[in-house]
Amino acid sequence: MTLSETTTTQAHPALTAAADAAIAAYRNAVATYSRDQLRAIEMDGADGTPTMFVDVVVEDAIITAATAAGVNVLSEERGWIDVGSSVTLVVDPVDGSANAAAGVPLSCFSAAVVVDGEFTEALTCWLHTDQRWWASRDHSPYRTSGCRRVGDAAVSILRPHTRNWDAWERVARKATRVRILSCSTLDAAFVADGSVDAFLDAGSDTHRLMDIAAAVVQVTASGGVVLDAYGRPIEFDTDLTRRWSGIVAATPELGEELRALVTG
Amino acid sequence: MTLSETTTTQAHPALTAAADAAIAAYRNAVATYSRDQLRAIEMDGADGTPTMFVDVVVEDAIITAATAAGVNVLSEERGWIDVGSSVTLVVDPVDGSANAAAGVPLSCFSAAVVVDGEFTEALTCWLHTDQRWWASRDHSPYRTSGCRRVGDAAVSILRPHTRNWDAWERVARKATRVRILSCSTLDAAFVADGSVDAFLDAGSDTHRLMDIAAAVVQVTASGGVVLDAYGRPIEFDTDLTRRWSGIVAATPELGEELRALVTG
Repeated sequence: MTLSETTTTQAHPALTAAADAAIAAYRNAVATYSRDQLRAIEMDGADGTPTMFVDVVVEDAIITAATAAGVNVLSEERGWIDVGSSVTLVVDPVDGSANAAAGVPLSCFSAAVVVDGEFTEALTCWLHTDQRWWASRDHSPYRTSGCRRVGDAAVSILRPHTRNWDAWERVARKATRVRILSCSTLDAAFVADGSVDAFLDAGSDTHRLMDIAAAVVQVTASGGVVLDAYGRPIEFDTDLTRRWSGIVAATPELGEELRALVTG
Repeated sequence: MTLSETTTTQAHPALTAAADAAIAAYRNAVATYSRDQLRAIEMDGADGTPTMFVDVVVEDAIITAATAAGVNVLSEERGWIDVGSSVTLVVDPVDGSANAAAGVPLSCFSAAVVVDGEFTEALTCWLHTDQRWWASRDHSPYRTSGCRRVGDAAVSILRPHTRNWDAWERVARKATRVRILSCSTLDAAFVADGSVDAFLDAGSDTHRLMDIAAAVVQVTASGGVVLDAYGRPIEFDTDLTRRWSGIVAATPELGEELRALVTG
């Protein structure tokens, strides 16, 4: 059985339907609208941040597909849409919106399935290529790299901000290689499949739940860890103002060393 | 006429043949060998840096195709292969080797055509997707973003090193957004097509001729500039020990402001 057959046969139907809807809406938007139109600020999202037009059109397609499949949706712009199901999709419609709107082809649909408050499975779909990374709590087709030390690690990292410049620099100076791809869910998929050793927000508290929910399932089931730099639990919550500084690492040892570097 | 028809009908046949050979060899290598095999150090290249196995197998395929098409090849590992033609391909077989070997799908074949010492056209091909960016000195299907100020710019940048940390930080603090994709020729293609406002080596002198030769054609013909941070001309030379700190920018003003930031 190939990987895509695994995904097709085992993934929750609402998850697959939402990904298919996201791909179609994203590709239609990119083919139809200019970059200026895609990145126009459309509204203030439920997460309290400005929302681009490209986010809105993809999210609307996802909500239609997921609710038709009978599940609730928690998404960054519209917030919590409760259709009375025991199953919720925690969705990032276009992770890497700034990339998508500019034309840098690194953006993803990503969603985690929550049943009775627990993350059970997750799917990340690279919108440019339709490559998909799926795993459940009990089964992952991937293995992390197994890297245990920052000094041996290739690390992806959110871009630095004035508020976390020192922590960013401590990590970047110690790692063997740093990348800034500006797409958290793709970065996390690369940790799950061993292409990258770790990915983190170096203490800027930029991560919302939908930026790291899929990682919790995918990377944990693949042998790695997902931590918050400041020790806050990464858990299902419909309060979208919560923030984390996620650390996604190939091994617990690597995760703890990164946490120590971030907190100084 | 679509873009790909433009490329097919106008590009030098040796350039297209080399790209096709690179794609086939890269995909075969990724399907056949493990990550450890792909990144194993195979030899010291003609450019004085260690060469990975993945570089060697792709370069060999390119050299076979290009010399069969009757042109000389200047490439990072084997150096200068002179078949007596007035036409030379300056080739980077796998730009972003570290990405390619790790499984991060950001690496490119890139080549510029040199006739009588002048760059006349160039092709960059994203190995993961086979997307191609082609332009000649006289014709580009792309336009840069037109951005004129670092304070308004999204900038891609080579990863920082100890030797250029301060310059790196000056640029990163002033730009609105920074990315580190670790693939110079893809970064330059994004500047040409307006997805990114600038790309640079912030003074680390990492760039070899094949890392920026395609940019000279593609970005200049699209309205931008390609400079060296220290004012050295970027010109055809078979001495592969030469290095540059390339600055690839949407406009001359943006290039000059970046140069001033790098040199402090």
